[in-house]
Amino acid sequence: MDEPVKRGGNGPRRSATIFATALELLGTEGYDGLTMESIAARSGVNKTTLYRWWPSKDAVLAAALENSELLTLTAPDTGTLRGDLLELTTGIQRLLTDPATAPIATAVLGAAADRPQLAAIGRAFFAGRLERERPVFERAVARGELPASADPAMIMDLLAGALWFRLLLRGEPVSARYIHEIIDLVLPA
Amino acid sequence: MDEPVKRGGNGPRRSATIFATALELLGTEGYDGLTMESIAARSGVNKTTLYRWWPSKDAVLAAALENSELLTLTAPDTGTLRGDLLELTTGIQRLLTDPATAPIATAVLGAAADRPQLAAIGRAFFAGRLERERPVFERAVARGELPASADPAMIMDLLAGALWFRLLLRGEPVSARYIHEIIDLVLPA
Repeated sequence: MDEPVKRGGNGPRRSATIFATALELLGTEGYDGLTMESIAARSGVNKTTLYRWWPSKDAVLAAALENSELLTLTAPDTGTLRGDLLELTTGIQRLLTDPATAPIATAVLGAAADRPQLAAIGRAFFAGRLERERPVFERAVARGELPASADPAMIMDLLAGALWFRLLLRGEPVSARYIHEIIDLVLPA
Repeated sequence: MDEPVKRGGNGPRRSATIFATALELLGTEGYDGLTMESIAARSGVNKTTLYRWWPSKDAVLAAALENSELLTLTAPDTGTLRGDLLELTTGIQRLLTDPATAPIATAVLGAAADRPQLAAIGRAFFAGRLERERPVFERAVARGELPASADPAMIMDLLAGALWFRLLLRGEPVSARYIHEIIDLVLPA
């Protein structure tokens, strides 16, 4: 007796459990090891139910990435652009290093590289985050901290990109001081 | 009758062919599809010869990434920090978008995420590039364009990270104008 959840009715009542399970399995088994069978079994949901709502594991993953509380982004509003960027960037660092989320981030990264479908899911995920980050930049422009011509995507490319590159490709740690310094570099003087 | 090449004697005479083949196969077959057998067969070298020089495909890959002409970085010396960063960043963009190198970059990215051995190879590769980039920053400090306290790794994290993040995770294009603008943001005013 599954019923649609509030969110546009896009899922059975247990969707929170299903999403959490799918992301956990993605982290532990990798994208290739993830199956509709394992998601159903681990979340205690009928496989038929799972397929009724999502036609494929990619569809479950897309919904999970979009809705997971683990990955939720609440745009900060500290009163200054610097304060907001500090919270956003620290949040990304946490996402990439916390044992609960780091395996998900690296699995998405690894899978996105050579699997077009998951790459599309990743792009939608990052586009969604950028939308939620926009108010930070709109308020900064309104306060006169940023020119109206500033490109929020470019600023986030630099900050998020530096953390991804440093943590996952260079394999170097990111300190609180490092975060302060990259924000200093990127913010208009 | 293979003979060691100049470079510390770390490979047979055909090492350039072997490295090019290994990287091409990495791009087309992915890390998992790459084998010592396929490298040997495709480069016309005896498997025994291959194993005599490198104990594993990881060892071949590490040497290939380090020595490949495709990925070679010659630090620019244009006379200004801005000019040098423009060349470095444009070179990274080319690496990530050129059909000859983009598959290698995405394969390294994908494999680095969940294969510790390849991740170590990637880290060594990026450390090597940073070493070759250092003169750019030393000259900038000598010219008074950059404070001596500036961290070259941080500047390259921001620029390279923005390109990797934008091209491979966001799936957005990078224009020449974008490259100029991120350099403007990162350079001290």
